[in-house]
Amino acid sequence: MKKLINDPQTVVAESLEGFGAAHPDVVTVHADPWFVTRAGGTTPGKVGLVSGGGSGHEPLHAGFVGVGMLDAAVPGAVFTSPTPDQIAPAFQAADAGAGVLAIVKNYTGDVLNFEMAAEVADDVTVRTVVVNDDVAVEDSLYTAGRRGVAGTVAVEKIAGAAAERGDDLDAVAAVAERVVANVRSMGVALTACTVPHAGRPSFDLPDDEIEIGIGIHGEPGRRRVPLAGADEITDMLLEPVVDDLELSGGERVLLFVNGMGGTPASELYVVYRRARAVLEERGVEVARSLVGNYVTSLEMQGASVTVLRLDDELAALWDAPVHTAALRW
Amino acid sequence: MKKLINDPQTVVAESLEGFGAAHPDVVTVHADPWFVTRAGGTTPGKVGLVSGGGSGHEPLHAGFVGVGMLDAAVPGAVFTSPTPDQIAPAFQAADAGAGVLAIVKNYTGDVLNFEMAAEVADDVTVRTVVVNDDVAVEDSLYTAGRRGVAGTVAVEKIAGAAAERGDDLDAVAAVAERVVANVRSMGVALTACTVPHAGRPSFDLPDDEIEIGIGIHGEPGRRRVPLAGADEITDMLLEPVVDDLELSGGERVLLFVNGMGGTPASELYVVYRRARAVLEERGVEVARSLVGNYVTSLEMQGASVTVLRLDDELAALWDAPVHTAALRW
Repeated sequence: MKKLINDPQTVVAESLEGFGAAHPDVVTVHADPWFVTRAGGTTPGKVGLVSGGGSGHEPLHAGFVGVGMLDAAVPGAVFTSPTPDQIAPAFQAADAGAGVLAIVKNYTGDVLNFEMAAEVADDVTVRTVVVNDDVAVEDSLYTAGRRGVAGTVAVEKIAGAAAERGDDLDAVAAVAERVVANVRSMGVALTACTVPHAGRPSFDLPDDEIEIGIGIHGEPGRRRVPLAGADEITDMLLEPVVDDLELSGGERVLLFVNGMGGTPASELYVVYRRARAVLEERGVEVARSLVGNYVTSLEMQGASVTVLRLDDELAALWDAPVHTAALRW
Repeated sequence: MKKLINDPQTVVAESLEGFGAAHPDVVTVHADPWFVTRAGGTTPGKVGLVSGGGSGHEPLHAGFVGVGMLDAAVPGAVFTSPTPDQIAPAFQAADAGAGVLAIVKNYTGDVLNFEMAAEVADDVTVRTVVVNDDVAVEDSLYTAGRRGVAGTVAVEKIAGAAAERGDDLDAVAAVAERVVANVRSMGVALTACTVPHAGRPSFDLPDDEIEIGIGIHGEPGRRRVPLAGADEITDMLLEPVVDDLELSGGERVLLFVNGMGGTPASELYVVYRRARAVLEERGVEVARSLVGNYVTSLEMQGASVTVLRLDDELAALWDAPVHTAALRW
């Protein structure tokens, strides 16, 4: 295992310390228990947005804490749900009197622990939206129902903008649910990743095969296929996404090509080029774009394609200013 | 070789097409010959900033084209200098009547081809600044003198801000030279990268060794050492940088931890944490920070540490607004 770490037991803590020190204008990192809040604190009367999950997917979620997006993020150990005793104080820190929306990726541990935390933090009104954008598999190693993957970025960005403009908890939850209903993703792995405390790759993938429909923890996808060209692979990811969304010509979308952590930006743009061309051939307008490493699996090589069906409001909320460590405009 | 590409011969072109389509508000991508300009065109009377070099280091340089940074970027084939017939039209496109500053990393091919391009584009007044921030080796496979690596980002950002505020060509060149004089870097490779048309890793690195002082094309560094903890590796990178800069207590710096393409963000923050702590122990104030994949070597795992000595003007120019595909604030 070749990693720039000191010790598998301390990597998350040390990384968070570095993250907090590098972005003191954006975030405050709290230890014991670990969670991350906006440096500026809460905005009275604003709905608080809290997300979290296992570490190893950076910049998700701490990289999205800041004006226009999350109020707090709760990082677990690598690929491990944060505990209720971490999440509850994050709820409390994010509450500015208007309640908190919890954005939870659909993994059994995350869903349970956020639920328990809401019971612990019984002084805070918590609503929860569960993200389940991965069309690859219906149930998996870690989930009942579909997994939450890169579409989470769109949920956090758009709900964050709704909260920032002053929407109340019901309204922020409703817009988050509308994103969930209209966003789908599918990923591919070219290589496995290695969890630090495991010390060896999560799975074996022969040199001439790729895994279509991979999860963000290296969970199995739909099938293994021989290594193919980027256009062919992109088509394998995009087609189930478009089908599941029942996209038709004349619709507008956000196209998001996400890197899994170990893939060069140049390759992500090759995938983006093909996905965009296929969407345009079908008469779908690619009105917004995002390309880069946003929901990663450590150093895994691979990518995912996410499509979000846009309406005027979702597009405007996507465009609203955002100032976080990982996303700014 | 596992890559998300269609063909080694077309990967740069397809990636640029994707890049242009994803960021139409920021850049315009020109084909035949390939170069990238700002979407909004030139600003009359503003000094034009042009950079370029081999592809495979994305987001450098095309990701830094936009308001507050470059006016044009010229991408060569992977790890190959762009040709004079690409660079000359980029000079012409970037010239708005106040001349052009060429920012060139110190590789023999780049230096020669930018020089020849300046002769071809004899209607444009071109000044050149050569970036040579890598303290690892004095001469190398591709260079006479030190190599230009991640410090290039600081040169492009700060000179870009000087041009944007209306400095003339002499003044923009002078501030760029001041950055070059005060910025130093050193990198480490944990793994090799694979150039697409080569099809196999650029060098062999045993599972238990790392290369200290690696170049951004996988050129040899100072020495191979056994894999060590992140703190120990960070010290091996930072010490020669600090020594070469002759940094003293009481000085202020920008600390930039750059990922080589295949390293998770979490590991870069572990390196940042240590580098910052060591600088602070020496009484050096880390006044600005940058952490992420900005000058990469395809999918190489590794990182580099860059330190820029700041004065009030350099800090203010660093802070000035920037709106590019890869750097925004």
